[in-house]
This record gives sequence, C-alpha cells and structure tokens, in this order.
Amino acid sequence: MIFPNYDVIVVGAGHAGCEAAAAAANLGSKVLLITMNMQVIAQMSCNPAMGGIAKGQIVREIDALGGYSGIVTDLSMIQFRMLNRSKGPAMWSPRTQNDRMLFAATWREKLEQTKNVDFYQDMVKSIIIKDGRAAGVVTGLGHSINSKAVVVTSGTFLNGIIHIGEKQFGGGRVAEKAATGITEQLVDLGFESDRLKTGTPPRVDGRSLDYSKMEEQKGDDEITGFSYTNTPKPNRQISCWITYTNQKVHDLLKTGFDRSPMYTGRIEGTGPRYCPSIEDKINRFAERERHQLFVEPEGWNTVEIYVNGFSTSLPEEVQYEALKQVAGFENVRIFRPGYAIEYDYFPPTQLTHSLETKLIGNLFFAGQINGTTGYEEAACQGLMAGINAHQKIRELDPLILKRSDAYIGVLIDDLISKGTEEPYRMFTSRAEFRTLLRQDNADLRLTELSYRMGLASQERMDAVIEKRNGTEKIKQLMKEISVDPSEADGFLAKYNSAPMPHKNKSIQLLLRPNIGLKEMIQELPSLAPLKVFAPEIIEQAEIQIKYDVYIEKEKEIVKKMSSLEDLMIPDNFDYDRVAALSNEALQKFKKIKPRTLGQASRISGVNPSDVQILMVYMGR
Amino acid sequence: MIFPNYDVIVVGAGHAGCEAAAAAANLGSKVLLITMNMQVIAQMSCNPAMGGIAKGQIVREIDALGGYSGIVTDLSMIQFRMLNRSKGPAMWSPRTQNDRMLFAATWREKLEQTKNVDFYQDMVKSIIIKDGRAAGVVTGLGHSINSKAVVVTSGTFLNGIIHIGEKQFGGGRVAEKAATGITEQLVDLGFESDRLKTGTPPRVDGRSLDYSKMEEQKGDDEITGFSYTNTPKPNRQISCWITYTNQKVHDLLKTGFDRSPMYTGRIEGTGPRYCPSIEDKINRFAERERHQLFVEPEGWNTVEIYVNGFSTSLPEEVQYEALKQVAGFENVRIFRPGYAIEYDYFPPTQLTHSLETKLIGNLFFAGQINGTTGYEEAACQGLMAGINAHQKIRELDPLILKRSDAYIGVLIDDLISKGTEEPYRMFTSRAEFRTLLRQDNADLRLTELSYRMGLASQERMDAVIEKRNGTEKIKQLMKEISVDPSEADGFLAKYNSAPMPHKNKSIQLLLRPNIGLKEMIQELPSLAPLKVFAPEIIEQAEIQIKYDVYIEKEKEIVKKMSSLEDLMIPDNFDYDRVAALSNEALQKFKKIKPRTLGQASRISGVNPSDVQILMVYMGR
Repeated sequence: MIFPNYDVIVVGAGHAGCEAAAAAANLGSKVLLITMNMQVIAQMSCNPAMGGIAKGQIVREIDALGGYSGIVTDLSMIQFRMLNRSKGPAMWSPRTQNDRMLFAATWREKLEQTKNVDFYQDMVKSIIIKDGRAAGVVTGLGHSINSKAVVVTSGTFLNGIIHIGEKQFGGGRVAEKAATGITEQLVDLGFESDRLKTGTPPRVDGRSLDYSKMEEQKGDDEITGFSYTNTPKPNRQISCWITYTNQKVHDLLKTGFDRSPMYTGRIEGTGPRYCPSIEDKINRFAERERHQLFVEPEGWNTVEIYVNGFSTSLPEEVQYEALKQVAGFENVRIFRPGYAIEYDYFPPTQLTHSLETKLIGNLFFAGQINGTTGYEEAACQGLMAGINAHQKIRELDPLILKRSDAYIGVLIDDLISKGTEEPYRMFTSRAEFRTLLRQDNADLRLTELSYRMGLASQERMDAVIEKRNGTEKIKQLMKEISVDPSEADGFLAKYNSAPMPHKNKSIQLLLRPNIGLKEMIQELPSLAPLKVFAPEIIEQAEIQIKYDVYIEKEKEIVKKMSSLEDLMIPDNFDYDRVAALSNEALQKFKKIKPRTLGQASRISGVNPSDVQILMVYMGR
Repeated sequence: MIFPNYDVIVVGAGHAGCEAAAAAANLGSKVLLITMNMQVIAQMSCNPAMGGIAKGQIVREIDALGGYSGIVTDLSMIQFRMLNRSKGPAMWSPRTQNDRMLFAATWREKLEQTKNVDFYQDMVKSIIIKDGRAAGVVTGLGHSINSKAVVVTSGTFLNGIIHIGEKQFGGGRVAEKAATGITEQLVDLGFESDRLKTGTPPRVDGRSLDYSKMEEQKGDDEITGFSYTNTPKPNRQISCWITYTNQKVHDLLKTGFDRSPMYTGRIEGTGPRYCPSIEDKINRFAERERHQLFVEPEGWNTVEIYVNGFSTSLPEEVQYEALKQVAGFENVRIFRPGYAIEYDYFPPTQLTHSLETKLIGNLFFAGQINGTTGYEEAACQGLMAGINAHQKIRELDPLILKRSDAYIGVLIDDLISKGTEEPYRMFTSRAEFRTLLRQDNADLRLTELSYRMGLASQERMDAVIEKRNGTEKIKQLMKEISVDPSEADGFLAKYNSAPMPHKNKSIQLLLRPNIGLKEMIQELPSLAPLKVFAPEIIEQAEIQIKYDVYIEKEKEIVKKMSSLEDLMIPDNFDYDRVAALSNEALQKFKKIKPRTLGQASRISGVNPSDVQILMVYMGR
C-alpha cells in the first residue's frame, strides 16, 4: 500500500484546504492534503490582499483559534492598513497587501512544518463511501486512499469553465486544469449542485503605468498585523494607487457587450454581487460617471500589477482599449487578460453547523464549494471543517461558534440556514452583535475555546490571560485613581475638552470623546503606574471602558437570544407531526433541519408564529 | 491593437526562453516573452541543480557572454561543489544544488528588471509567416502578434504526453497543459519532426527518510559560484545524501515491466541515454548489483526531496514498493510519482549555426525542441538564438562560436552537423579542445566577443581586462623573480618536493607537481609582491603556467583545423555539380548545407575523400 490509512483527507490546497489540513493535524489527526499541483499550494487566485471590512475580523478570528492565515499574511505583507480607524472600534478592519508568491511559499512552509500533514499531488475523482460515511477518495492516477473523514475544498475547480469574450475553455484557474468527477458522483447520491461564477481583472505591467496620474495610498505608519502571536513585520511598505474609470472607458466596454459571455447567456452561474465585474457595474449603475480602480502591486520584487475593480470577461481587445482610457493607463501593457470562471457549488443548506454534509457522514465541505467568495470566508470554513472532521472521528463534540461568538459563527449559520444563490461575502451588517465581534478582541472571544480543544497553544492562552487580566487591572485602577482639576485641566484643554468641575475618578475622564487612554497615561502623572501595560492591553481597556454601554446592551440581547439558541431541536424531529406550521416553514425545516429554535427563527420565509408553534410543540 | 510590433517574440519561458528573451532585449530588441503560465516562469522541471561536468563549463560560458543563468544560479544555490578538483583544471566542473522556487523567482525578477522584455500569458498556436520569414505568432486566445523574428523554445510541451504505468494523459509537465498547433503547422511547411522522451523520478517527503543510512555529501568549504560578476554567496549550505538500489529493488521494479509504458510500446520517443530511467538501468546493466541514488533537497525551507537516479514511468505502486527497499527509504512517503513525458522535437540538422531554421528565415529554435536534454544545454542555445535573432533583424553578422571557442560551439556544431536521434547531452569528451575550454577561463575566451556586440557590460569587460593583464603580469614577474635554495628548500620539503639544485626562476618551481602558486606567494618572501593579485587571477596564472605545454599544443591543432574552418562554402553551393562525391556525402551536404569545410568534415558518413573533392572543386 502506497498510502497509509489517514484520519482526514483534505481535497484541495487553497485557503480552505490549507487551514483544514493544518487544524486537523494540529489536533492530532493524521492528514493527507491532496492537490492537483504542489507547485501552486495556497495561491491567491484573486487579488494579492487579505482582510478588509468584516474580512479582517475573520482573519483575526482564525488566528485566535490557532489557524495559520494570520501568521502567513503577516509574514508576507507588503502593506498594512487599519481601515475605518475614524469610526468606532467595531468597524476597525485590518487589511494587508501581500506578496503573492511569498504568501504561497510561506503557507507551504507552515504546512510542511506541521506534523501529521502528508502531501500528495493528484486529482480526486470521487469520494469513497462506506455505510453512508465518507471513507476516503479515489484519484485520477487510480489510487484508493482510505480515511475516516474527507474535507472537500474544491474552490473554482469542479467542472471549471473559463470565459474571455467569445472564447471558453475548461480550467480551474487559467493555465490549470479543471477537476471532474466529484460533482457527478455526489449528484447521483442525491446532492443538489448548481453553478456560480466569479472573475478576475487583467494583470498588467507596472512599468507601463503613469502613477503621477493616480492617487497614492500608503500603508499605515504603525503595522499591527493580523496575528496575536508576535510575527515579524516588514520595515518598509509598498504603496497602492487609486484611479478611476470614466465615460469613455464605459462606452468602450459597452462595445463588447454583444460578445460578452455574461450578456450572451454563455455564463449561467451567478456572480458575486458585491464584487461585480466592471461590465456589471456600468450596467447596474448606469448613472455613475466613474468607478474606482485600486491598483495593487503583486509583491516586493515584481512589476506585475493587479487592477482591482476591473474584473471582466469581455473580449481582451475590449479590456485593453477601455483600460487605455483610464488615467495612468494610457500606455498599459497587459500580462494576462481578465476572465470569468464558472464552477460547481453545493447549496450549503445541505450542511450541518459543523460543515458536515447531512447526506453523507464524515464528509465536510469548506470554501467556494459552499457558495462563498473571498479568501477569508474560505479559510475560516476550512479551519472549522478541519476541526470538526477531527472532532467527529474522535467522537467529540463539534466546535460550533455562535453568531455572538464570531463572524465565523455568523457566516456558517447564514450559509446553512439561509443557503445562498450567489457568492456569499461577509459584511459587518450581517452580524447582529458587531460591537462584540471586534478585531481587537477575537483572542479574548475565541482562544480559550480552541485551547481547551487542544488547538491553540499554551503560549496563545497565556497571552490571552495576560491581556484579560491586564485589561481588568487597568479598569480597576482607573476606578480607583482620582485626578484633580489642577492636574488635568491643561491636558483637557490640549484635547479640546472642557475643564473638570471637580476632582473625579480617572475612568470618568476617559469617557469623554476626545480623550485617549494612551495620552492620559503619558501625560497625567497620577496614571503613571499604568505605563507598565503593553499597548494592546491599554487599547483593549480603553475600548472596553469607552464602549461599555454598547457592549453591555449587546450582551443583554445575546442573553435573550440564547434562550432560543439553547432550545435544541432533536436531530430526528418529525416536523410533519406539527400540524399548524405554514407550508413554507414545514418544507424549510425539513430541508434545513435547524439545530436550535434560534436557527429555525433565522431561516428565510419562516415567520415568528412558526417558531412559536414549534416552541409550544416542543413542550413550552 | 493590444500588442505593439515586436522585434523578437520568444515562445516559452524555460531556461532557453528566458535566456533568449534577456539576450535579445539586452542587445536592444523589443522582446515579447510568451508563456502559458506566468506563475511558473523558469521552472526547474527536472532536478534542482545546475552545472556538473561539462554542464558547469557551459553555465560559466553563458555567464561570460552576459547571460543570466550563472547569476540566477548563484543567487538561488543551497550547495556548491567544484567537481573533479583532483583532476586537471580542464575537468573542474562547478555544480550547485538550488532552491527550486527561489531559482524561478530570481529568474523572473531578473527578466522583469530587463528593459525591453514584455510578458504575455497565452499559448502560441502557430507562427505567422510572411515571404518565407517568421513574422509573428498567433495565440490560443486568438491574438496575432507581429514581430521580425520568432524564437521557439517549447521544451517538452509540444504535443506532450505523460506516462505513469498504464496511465497516460496530455501535458507539458505534470499538472500543466500540453501545447498544440506549432508542430502540425511546421510539418505542413516541410519540417521534419519526431518524438523524444524524458522522465523524472518521484518527489518524496524528506521527513519520511532515514538519513543515518545514507552517505552525506556536503558542499565545498569555498564557494566560487558560476558568475564572473560578484554575486552574493550563501553563508550556509544544505547537504545532499547518497544511497543505493539493491537486488530487491531491481526485482520489485521488474514486476512492473509488463505494465511499463516503455516496454509495452506505448512510449515511442527515444529517451536520454546518459540519464536513463531506473528500469532502463537495471535492464541495460543487468550485471550491476546496485545503482547510486542522489537524494537532493528541493530548497532552503521545504521537506520535498528529489530522488535523482530513480527516474521512472513504472506504475506508481511499483515505484513505491521498490523505493521502500532502498536504504533510508523504508518509510518513504511519495509526494508526486515519477513519470515519463514524450514530446515533439525537430531534428536540428534543419538549423544553421545561428540556430535559425533553414526553411523559414528569422525563425529560431532553442532547447529541447532541438533534441537536447539538460538545463544548461537549453539555456546556452536560448542565449545564442536570442543573440542571433537580434543580429539577424538588424542585418548584423551572427555570433557563431567555434568548437575551439566554447562548449556552446561544440554543442551547436554537433547538433546541426550530426543531428541527434536521442536527447543530446554535453560531455567533456565531445570537445576536441577541452584543455582550452575550461571553466576558469570562459570569461577570457568569450566576454570580449559579447562586449563588442554590446551584450556583455563594460564592468564585465573591465574585469576581464584586469584578469588578463594581471595573469600576464604574474607570468612575467615569475619569469623575472628568482628564488634561491636557502629560501625555498624548507618550503619544498613541506610539500614533498626535492630541494633546488641551484638558484632558479620562480616559474620553474611552479612547474613542479605538488607546488601551488597560492602557497608560493604566501610562503616565499621573494614572491610577496604578488600578494596584490586577486585569488582568481593567481589561480588563472597558475593554470596557464602549469598547463602551458598542453594548452599550446591544442592551440596548434586549432590553428591547423581553422584553415579548414576558414574555407567557407557559399550558401547556394550546388553540390550536384560535384561529380565525384559519394552518394551519402552528396545527400548529407544537400540536407545539412555545411557552412565551412570544417563542418562538412564532421558530418557523420562523410569521408575525408569527400572533403578533399569538395576542396578541390572549390578552387584548391
């Protein structure tokens, strides 16, 4: 036997597959990661960037749980920005630009250094199923490889078809073969499958651009990064550039619409609404005179440029003629044209909260196969699927994050409860409790959960305890230490804050809008004892103090909601016996099989009255 | 028009294509480098090593001419060895192990930093031909791109078919698509094409090997490197390991012969005689009890291992079972199986000395398309094709290296005069003048030629002049400086050399076998003035002094031969009018169209009498 028996086989080595393999292996499972090409493990297929609004929070959550995306991102970043710094801390969102090749190389290194991860280069053609459970895979080279669980992270590869204008050809990414077999097998077994579409813009030669006609976007002065571990940060950064389309660009793009695979019906899959192609943008927002383009360098040492915002599947000459009309792109040279890709996904209502399929035990799906779009969305599903594949085969409880625990919880709950008919992307607006789900406290929210399972390291846990205790200590000290007007008034004046009417606890001062804790500690002698705390602990205390009211309010709502969440619906619950349910609710309940009354209440088409009836029936 | 008019289009971005693009661009041509996948420019498809016997000399020659292979190799090496140090300097051969990913990344960086090189990702389907000349290419995406010359470096991609046991599938490398169209077009135009085969061993997981059962092979203490420019060298090295097959391995391999694509007739192409598959070795050398395997790490930070010497296309389970019997491989885990690949080549007798095809003007071939094997062989042809494509379109004389100038001259003359029916690999034995063609003097031999064309930089030329002058100065000083017995005898005794009978010129001492110039300068006070010279200049002077007799003898032969070489045969020479030629010679002359009488004399099947007759006819 070439292959030993594995605990977990992970199919595909993109963001989802890499996280899944690392998580299951770090928990102690013997893992085989199968990829069609070991040369391109952890490719950033789309733009060379990680994080951003809501997505940055997800990367922080992955890191807090002991995943690798944050570390890999930090080690390969070429620029860091904390988006939304001017808004409340719930909106702060870290984002990096990355060196595309270094990102992939770093991921591969991390995986190779992970005990229990084996690699194999081959295509998976089908899943071995025994007694209704996934028990391995069969590969293109004809190998049957046994395992106790399988995680499929097929990205855009399943029956992938690439479109550029009137050209179309099979492929999982341009210049890479598509994968076949899995969809057909699973559909035969009763799975539903459908098509989605995504796209990518042209890559161009940076030497052909005139940056003097664009706006420079520099990185932040301070790089905080993604990982709660201390990853080294670069000591220089590379700028991005902003430019805009214009009416001429739009007119030229329109000349290609009669040859567009999107408008001539050749593309059937639905594309990502919030990351539309440029032709989609000028079509849907016909009134807009211009659209922003974000000109992203591909790495430290390359002239290749990613034209974010110009995703397109129009004929290449149309891409070119239109792009040439963009300020700074007058002499543009295209390296590789933009293209659209259609691929198979499996509507995620076919999954449980652990990302296991309902139809086949021990079979897990993660990433684009579940209808999501985005590296971060894929990576976090991979992490959870990897964790839960391990838990399942050890007969341990799955790790299921609540909507109040993490964006990851929101994402998975949305997917499996509501499904998605277009590529699902995370937004802060999808989270009910976003004041709780901040990028600064993912470690406080999640690391202990992971540590208890044996995934997050002792070192991570120690850091969390230090941060938690330090934060509490600061809060307590600020309730104790008073400041009197003579000490504070100069300081307050400096920050345009009214003088103190009388001596007061320092915590009261911090509640004032313009007053920051860092500055207080720096400038008010009474607070000098707080200088011993690390900056991230000081920041954490400040946020908890300043936003205490909002945080407590959300915690209250969570508590109320969790009474519903705590009401588990038995696995084999027979909805047909609940006479009064609306027809739609009955069908949805039977299809989605909600785990709790809370989940049942969030299913689209389910009315509060249906939930009431269910609750009554269940014995309340 | 998306594409401007180019001077030179280079098809393929392997070793040959990268050198061709860089050379033509550095000479001032506007170059487009087209590759099917920009993500894998300059892949080492085979083992992660450069140089070796005769091949190391070629890399030095490429570097001396201003090519990039030497620099890229130096920057990405993980180990350096000067092979054959114990033999004469003609046999010294530098060899490196390289970080596969870093090698590719470094090449891409170098190309991106080369002015005049544009990139495009697409497959070339056919050559545009106008008035009997190559005038551009047509791509898979449907673009017609114009140029004045085309260099085709298709490697193993033209109609590539991959074999693993009874499995076969199209591909240019495993996990990469084959290229189609060019062969069919050229054959229609009257080109001859045939099939060759090459192969690669399994890649395995270094964590699964037991190195304690193998012999360690460390790098040299001193790293001299390939480039005559001062490239930074690594300050640590990684070891390779040596192990051996055994009878059990051979027996197990034989169990797969009935399913071997080689022995069942599925593979038609001829494989490389001097780099045979393991099944070939145990078949052809049945008496040998073991074959050496060279266990090569793939880079600084990867556990992937290349099992050099175990190239095979046997079924993967046979590869595995046999490999497991190798000492140190008892628990081996395969990452990717070995495989064979068949591809189209064009017998190189269809080329002129400039690597231009005889049938279609301004169309150049380089690398495996000409029937060679090896990175170095490919790279040097790419360099020459790139140079000569530039020269041709500027109506300048081609750069043609003589057999006495360079291994590159031997290689090209062999190819176009004799053709090849199996993958051609360079050996020192192929060179008549190998005492002249040393790795230490490639710069002295070649840089000036390249500098005069405008390729090698002023800096390179200055270094050559300094080396040349310094060497002459040392030789002169050693003829002048005398050493007397009292000064030298202790020194001589130390190196087991007889005492001096009387005072003598220092040059005479150096002619003694055990005496080195470095040590003389270090230890004999009279030679202290020579301490000002750089080590490579001292080494050069020593070689020239010690081997003077052999060098001068070869120079004499070269002079005699060149009288034949200088006799040019006119391009349109009508061999049919030379009545007395043997039939075979007549046919070969008409097919090969030798440029000189010297080349005519080296064509296989041509007798000295044929050359005499030709010479007489030409007016002597």
